[in-house]
Amino acid sequence: MTGAEPVSGQAPGGGSGGVMAALQRFIEADGTQRFIITVILVNAVVLGLETSPTARDHFGGLLVALDTIALGIFVIEIAIKLIVYRGRFFTSGWNVFDFVIVAVALVPTVEWLSVLRALRILRAFRLLSVMPQMRQVVQALLSAIPAMGSVILLLSLVFYVSAVIATKLFGADYPDWFGSVGASLFSLFQIMTLESWSMGIVRPVMGEFPYAWVFFVPFILMTSFIVLNLFIAIIVNAMHQSDVEEHNAHEDAVARELAALRQDIAEMRREQAAGKRD
Amino acid sequence: MTGAEPVSGQAPGGGSGGVMAALQRFIEADGTQRFIITVILVNAVVLGLETSPTARDHFGGLLVALDTIALGIFVIEIAIKLIVYRGRFFTSGWNVFDFVIVAVALVPTVEWLSVLRALRILRAFRLLSVMPQMRQVVQALLSAIPAMGSVILLLSLVFYVSAVIATKLFGADYPDWFGSVGASLFSLFQIMTLESWSMGIVRPVMGEFPYAWVFFVPFILMTSFIVLNLFIAIIVNAMHQSDVEEHNAHEDAVARELAALRQDIAEMRREQAAGKRD
Amino acid sequence: MTGAEPVSGQAPGGGSGGVMAALQRFIEADGTQRFIITVILVNAVVLGLETSPTARDHFGGLLVALDTIALGIFVIEIAIKLIVYRGRFFTSGWNVFDFVIVAVALVPTVEWLSVLRALRILRAFRLLSVMPQMRQVVQALLSAIPAMGSVILLLSLVFYVSAVIATKLFGADYPDWFGSVGASLFSLFQIMTLESWSMGIVRPVMGEFPYAWVFFVPFILMTSFIVLNLFIAIIVNAMHQSDVEEHNAHEDAVARELAALRQDIAEMRREQAAGKRD
Amino acid sequence: MTGAEPVSGQAPGGGSGGVMAALQRFIEADGTQRFIITVILVNAVVLGLETSPTARDHFGGLLVALDTIALGIFVIEIAIKLIVYRGRFFTSGWNVFDFVIVAVALVPTVEWLSVLRALRILRAFRLLSVMPQMRQVVQALLSAIPAMGSVILLLSLVFYVSAVIATKLFGADYPDWFGSVGASLFSLFQIMTLESWSMGIVRPVMGEFPYAWVFFVPFILMTSFIVLNLFIAIIVNAMHQSDVEEHNAHEDAVARELAALRQDIAEMRREQAAGKRD
Repeated sequence: MTGAEPVSGQAPGGGSGGVMAALQRFIEADGTQRFIITVILVNAVVLGLETSPTARDHFGGLLVALDTIALGIFVIEIAIKLIVYRGRFFTSGWNVFDFVIVAVALVPTVEWLSVLRALRILRAFRLLSVMPQMRQVVQALLSAIPAMGSVILLLSLVFYVSAVIATKLFGADYPDWFGSVGASLFSLFQIMTLESWSMGIVRPVMGEFPYAWVFFVPFILMTSFIVLNLFIAIIVNAMHQSDVEEHNAHEDAVARELAALRQDIAEMRREQAAGKRD
Repeated sequence: MTGAEPVSGQAPGGGSGGVMAALQRFIEADGTQRFIITVILVNAVVLGLETSPTARDHFGGLLVALDTIALGIFVIEIAIKLIVYRGRFFTSGWNVFDFVIVAVALVPTVEWLSVLRALRILRAFRLLSVMPQMRQVVQALLSAIPAMGSVILLLSLVFYVSAVIATKLFGADYPDWFGSVGASLFSLFQIMTLESWSMGIVRPVMGEFPYAWVFFVPFILMTSFIVLNLFIAIIVNAMHQSDVEEHNAHEDAVARELAALRQDIAEMRREQAAGKRD
Repeated sequence: MTGAEPVSGQAPGGGSGGVMAALQRFIEADGTQRFIITVILVNAVVLGLETSPTARDHFGGLLVALDTIALGIFVIEIAIKLIVYRGRFFTSGWNVFDFVIVAVALVPTVEWLSVLRALRILRAFRLLSVMPQMRQVVQALLSAIPAMGSVILLLSLVFYVSAVIATKLFGADYPDWFGSVGASLFSLFQIMTLESWSMGIVRPVMGEFPYAWVFFVPFILMTSFIVLNLFIAIIVNAMHQSDVEEHNAHEDAVARELAALRQDIAEMRREQAAGKRD
Repeated sequence: MTGAEPVSGQAPGGGSGGVMAALQRFIEADGTQRFIITVILVNAVVLGLETSPTARDHFGGLLVALDTIALGIFVIEIAIKLIVYRGRFFTSGWNVFDFVIVAVALVPTVEWLSVLRALRILRAFRLLSVMPQMRQVVQALLSAIPAMGSVILLLSLVFYVSAVIATKLFGADYPDWFGSVGASLFSLFQIMTLESWSMGIVRPVMGEFPYAWVFFVPFILMTSFIVLNLFIAIIVNAMHQSDVEEHNAHEDAVARELAALRQDIAEMRREQAAGKRD
């Protein structure tokens, strides 16, 4: 998601320039944006009401109709954007996001794909792409991820290695928790979140393997420490950014002052030189 | 809660100026403030004792009497303030807070409104409005909220979308946890706090839907990450405020020094110019 | 605990000055300190072993003897310090701490005071007062507490008010959890730590009072937010301290440089003035 | 783990210099590094698959063969490094780490040492020593530990003292949780992580000892506070490091500017002096 957006005002290179420009003005208008936000909100409420049996019984037809209308509006919106921006449409991560969210809803919902029907509510996330302040928040969150890259790699490595060890040691006796690498990964994730780690898992395991704590306690300490450092990386990153701006402002003020001083001195030298020549 | 307080010393524009001024002096006196604080504390203890059956049996009448007296004092205090400050009274959030807290206690307590009786202890929160240092702490806490606005909006959106999905997918099989959007919201809040999320909810759900972790683990990671960023926003905000003060002090020192330098150089140039003229 | 320590080398004003000075040199010698640290460690191990039935069976007599010897050494140490420093002894919080810890062990252990016997291990905390680096850590921890004062007061108020409300609303139906203000305080503390708050307490309560979440969820949000701000107060405080030192160093460097500049300019002006007089 | 690495390019002082130099070039080549990383990854996947019964049934022989080949490659790699670097090999903590990880796999796996077989997956951690960016992350994590030294010592002391007290007070009635100092340490660690501390442990104990909360609640508050300070020590440390770099950059800029100014003024004085001599 680069956030790069098709530059508005740039004339699309088609033949029917007048119509295209009008379409672009229409789709980029503030009123249109506000209308789309309203449609998203109404659609979110409709999809929420659809989960209630009583609401379905009383005005189920209305809810389906409203959902279809909202979907139609989204399809038209994206179609216009595709016509106006063409290839450039897909250079914005947000547009791709909108496109996928809406496209998913158009997939014919076969019986066994009822999961996809449940995902229609994901359209509410279009609020993120439509409201500039939400885009900013999401981009700030995403910008923190690269700084965490290598720590996440380390954490994954610790998880994989621990899962293989746990499966080998405890898998035979506790198949529900450590029967496979996948089951162990889930159990270790639960243990990392400290949920029922002792009463639920480690104490029972220690009934069979009294020294199991030698594995689990260091695992908890290690993952907590790594996660803590993940947090710190984000905090330091955020702090640094807010600091840099501030420092720059300060530095600028001092630099301006110093530049003025040098200017003064330079002028003085010129005057002096001029005085000598007199 | 703006914290704006009626400016003391400003003469109220009524006809009976002398009485009004005396009332204002009385209500704003340190002694009165200390007396009100004492009444609040005694009232809080009385309401606490009222919950104990033995205390009620032995001196229930005394407790009710003390509570009524305390309430009477609060009513008189607020009445005086209303007389003195009139319309300006409601320009302070703290006054509105006091007014509502006391007014609630005057509502006749019908049988089914026993909840309101339990809320009488909220009067203890008047300590916050009466003690300046507590006001400051509360205002510092509240001042952190705007910085969190858009992140809270994002978190709400994630919660709503997840609740609708969870209701659709798991509602039929686990009505207690995911039977309605409201029930799902509560369960997801519990899961976000990591309380019994695995042993209590996700493992049972995975008995029926083996891939349920595909929904819940990302939900935990996502909400934890967003909440973490909420915290960071507050930390950076607090740090920034304490930093800015410090930086400004430093900047001032450097700026003062540089200004003195320019002054020196300017004088020197004047002297030089004067020297040339000689 | 002021940490103020009797100034060594200062001659005690007694008559038998020579003996006193020798005693002071002895008690303040590095070797004596190291010996006391060793005794504390041995005593801690002995008290730990005393909890093991097998260790008690095999050399219970030895353990009791070692404990008595250690206690004797501590009594002698403190007696010497009392003789040497007299009144000044109690001006140091650490000395008072040592005195109380050792005095407790001398109280005759009546049957029903077996708790006091269990507290003998508190002597191991004397390590904190004997080792300078541990003193420093403890003082750093304690120094963070005043900054948290008013936030702790706010948290206590929220707890008390919530406990009274919970007792009134849920006390009759759930006496184990909310039967008295004390029981409610404990349950609310548990809920604040998020331990089994939902599956263990709130969901059962919601069986009887479907709207109980209106009380508990805001309680969790509010206390979490206040505790977070407690943490932030400590972090900002710690950061500030480490920052101030650094900033000062920087400011010093710039100030030195600027002072040198002004010096240069002042000399130049003097030279110029001298030139003019020529 | 000092991270000091044998300086490449330094001629090993053996007689057969040409062969040695060629070996060193080979072992330090980028291609060799990439090959070793691939072998580590393949080996990690193989050891993961070995935990799956179906994978073992279908191509168990292949998995064992691949594991043996990978081990052989590691042995050859380390043998070459030992030949090339000789004594210097062990001056790098990472090399010692590699050596131990591989040596463990060569220990004959007796029946009761099946734990060692499970530890073969630890070889996946060789990724940390082979990839420079992972080395850096691990070293950054390890560098945070010394700053925590004395706080960890304090935490250990609190744990030991609390474990001895808990064993003495509750050991007889709750042998599973507090039967020995070891059991108490585990239970207290669980309580510190807040896992089931109340519903699981303290409420049952309070059935027998109604005042047990006097011990456990302060324990939770104290350890939470100490752990929080542990975190803060790391955060302040990390922040400080990133700050110092930034500050230095800023300081450098200002210092450069000031130095240029002094240079200007010095030149001016020289010119002035020259002018006077004219």
